[in-house]
Amino acid sequence: MSEFSLIDDIRRLTAHARGDVALGIGDDAAVLAVAPARQLVACTDTLVAGVHFPVDTAPADLGWKSLAVNLSDLAAMGAEPAWALLALTLPAADAAFVAAFAAGFAELAGEYGVALVGGDTTAGPLSVTLTALGTLPAGTALTRAGARAGDAVFVTGTLGDAAGALRPQAATESSAANAALRARLHRPSPRVAAGQALRGVAHACIDVSDGLLADLGHVCAASGVGAELEADALPVSAALRALFDADACLELAAAGGDDYELCFTAPADREAELVAALADRGGVTRIGRIVAGGGVRLLDSDGEPVPLARTGWEHFRS
Amino acid sequence: MSEFSLIDDIRRLTAHARGDVALGIGDDAAVLAVAPARQLVACTDTLVAGVHFPVDTAPADLGWKSLAVNLSDLAAMGAEPAWALLALTLPAADAAFVAAFAAGFAELAGEYGVALVGGDTTAGPLSVTLTALGTLPAGTALTRAGARAGDAVFVTGTLGDAAGALRPQAATESSAANAALRARLHRPSPRVAAGQALRGVAHACIDVSDGLLADLGHVCAASGVGAELEADALPVSAALRALFDADACLELAAAGGDDYELCFTAPADREAELVAALADRGGVTRIGRIVAGGGVRLLDSDGEPVPLARTGWEHFRS
Repeated sequence: MSEFSLIDDIRRLTAHARGDVALGIGDDAAVLAVAPARQLVACTDTLVAGVHFPVDTAPADLGWKSLAVNLSDLAAMGAEPAWALLALTLPAADAAFVAAFAAGFAELAGEYGVALVGGDTTAGPLSVTLTALGTLPAGTALTRAGARAGDAVFVTGTLGDAAGALRPQAATESSAANAALRARLHRPSPRVAAGQALRGVAHACIDVSDGLLADLGHVCAASGVGAELEADALPVSAALRALFDADACLELAAAGGDDYELCFTAPADREAELVAALADRGGVTRIGRIVAGGGVRLLDSDGEPVPLARTGWEHFRS
Repeated sequence: MSEFSLIDDIRRLTAHARGDVALGIGDDAAVLAVAPARQLVACTDTLVAGVHFPVDTAPADLGWKSLAVNLSDLAAMGAEPAWALLALTLPAADAAFVAAFAAGFAELAGEYGVALVGGDTTAGPLSVTLTALGTLPAGTALTRAGARAGDAVFVTGTLGDAAGALRPQAATESSAANAALRARLHRPSPRVAAGQALRGVAHACIDVSDGLLADLGHVCAASGVGAELEADALPVSAALRALFDADACLELAAAGGDDYELCFTAPADREAELVAALADRGGVTRIGRIVAGGGVRLLDSDGEPVPLARTGWEHFRS
């Protein structure tokens, strides 16, 4: 199929020149140069109106977020983002929507030098599927499968803000704290620089999209290990603390999702080095350790399990 | 975001091992090796229920077609397909649907050795976005921009069958001819081998998805030339001729769309060579010539313009 004027509008609005784009939008496919000794890293994610974002989400935020969630996946591999392909399905040709969407997309794409090289605009219920492509030195990808018993567990930034923004009180109040939470929900910052800094250091890595417990569970399953987290150690923003009590903060941080922080494991004796390396990349906090066995346990200061109302948000399982 | 059991089902059902997949489905992103001296070719296309396919389309046909339309775009570049990422949005978790979809997908993927390396399954109105990745020797991509006045215009296979299948009489009658048309609609054969054979021969190439006149129009616009087609030369199947009169056949062939044949330009003196090279790859027919100027004109045997009710199906423009 071919692209029509909407994708041309997006191309014009998101122009970013890269020397490795031999042929960009406007032909049947893009032609791209992967540098020698580097591997290609590829991921795709769909955001559906009413499922992954409220139907009244600002188009500019949607443009940003559709790219951000994919750059977060690339970050979790330690990859450098390079190119993106955008499939945008809209109920009607809406030039104002497209212009705003493209502006939000371009804002984040420009930050990371990502070139939009392909796409498809179609008529239908509002959804966005973005495919992000990046590269990294061959053999250096961070995976979910390398965690070892004895590793420390770390997480970048803070957790729970985006999930907090979806709680009724946060959605309706206009305080600075609420605005901070909503910014985390609508304009997540993918930890691209942090991910690259973790190559050669982290044993396993994942981005936190479904919630810390669920995503660390994926790492444990892929690695054949378990994890113990210290509830008191989970990093929570001042804004979240200002709006929610301690129990709610813990639940949001442990199971809320949509954080787009990186959770990774690494030798405990590299903590100081990691703290220094990530200080200006969102920061990092040691939150627990990898153990033999399986599963993820959240422990209180007495080492007792903390019960949580839910352990992660999953499609098709509510 | 992460993938849930549906994408695991699809992975299991579409397993195809490739040595260049360092890491496939199951992590935050796939890690892939592009061979030295080759370029990456990437495209994405969305199929929306009720827009691009009837809502009662068999899931296996949808699985096939979602890959086919993208392999057709790779074919138009002269690329060899390698990997795919699948974003499948479903109203509900439907294991039978997924199994059938995966079977149809796997049938075509196996034919071309395509590995499914990533994906996302989400809840929402039925749609499929597939991203196809392939490679080709650096600098050999066929584009839309190389057509030159004096080139002959060629098309592979036959035109109009898929569009014919959407006409009421074809949808309701059960003859062999109708079945042949519906097979072209639901199980298009991407001209992958033909595309690769055209590298170094064709000056410009596009796949016919929106209709011959519309797609050749894209080539003319990109190349800064015009085209004159001989109405009598357009290749039409025996099945289409059995079901429609000459005028209807011409309209379906010229403007129907969904053909997934390749339309390309090449020096006229290479016709015999092309006919021989493509004889067992769907065949090829010379249908006209490239001229100075712009636009695409369909001419009758007296060289007079043929009026057509419509010149192509375009999203958002009906």
